[in-house]
Amino acid sequence: MQLLLLTYDVNTTTPEGRRRLRTVAQICEGYGRRVQKSVFEIISDEPGVLTLIDRIGRVIDDEADSIRVYRLPPDGFTVVRTLGAARAVGHNDAIII
Amino acid sequence: MQLLLLTYDVNTTTPEGRRRLRTVAQICEGYGRRVQKSVFEIISDEPGVLTLIDRIGRVIDDEADSIRVYRLPPDGFTVVRTLGAARAVGHNDAIII
Repeated sequence: MQLLLLTYDVNTTTPEGRRRLRTVAQICEGYGRRVQKSVFEIISDEPGVLTLIDRIGRVIDDEADSIRVYRLPPDGFTVVRTLGAARAVGHNDAIII
Repeated sequence: MQLLLLTYDVNTTTPEGRRRLRTVAQICEGYGRRVQKSVFEIISDEPGVLTLIDRIGRVIDDEADSIRVYRLPPDGFTVVRTLGAARAVGHNDAIII
């Protein structure tokens, strides 16, 4: 399995941009979790990553949007630091409500 | 030196949010480069990272904003994939104008 970080640069001042962000978020949430409005932690094998990229490619606006996918090290979801409203919740952590 | 990815979740529908993003971008650009509107690739030693975090902490709105800092592997700036307007330019690549 690979740990990836997917960042999505999209103009959310338009309804179309917000719609694309919602769709990309829905796709990504099948592979990991949303940690910021347009940043997603992804866990997947190689075929899954290819499927993910293909599905996202059909949603985004190539002219206006930007997607970047980074490979993280094995402990990559342990962020070095969070500031502000950011809250680090591990993928395997229990969430107490 | 460490390779880090800093992601900044900020509401840019307000003038104050846009101002904070501009200031954070100015700070981060001293340590690396801006690859998306609110994603920055950082190269720094440990003291530099601490200074960076301290400076950003003085700018952001703790209630509204979120900063996450991820550690990347040694070849971490080689993105797995870009889609859309994203353009991968290496830190050491010549930029032809």
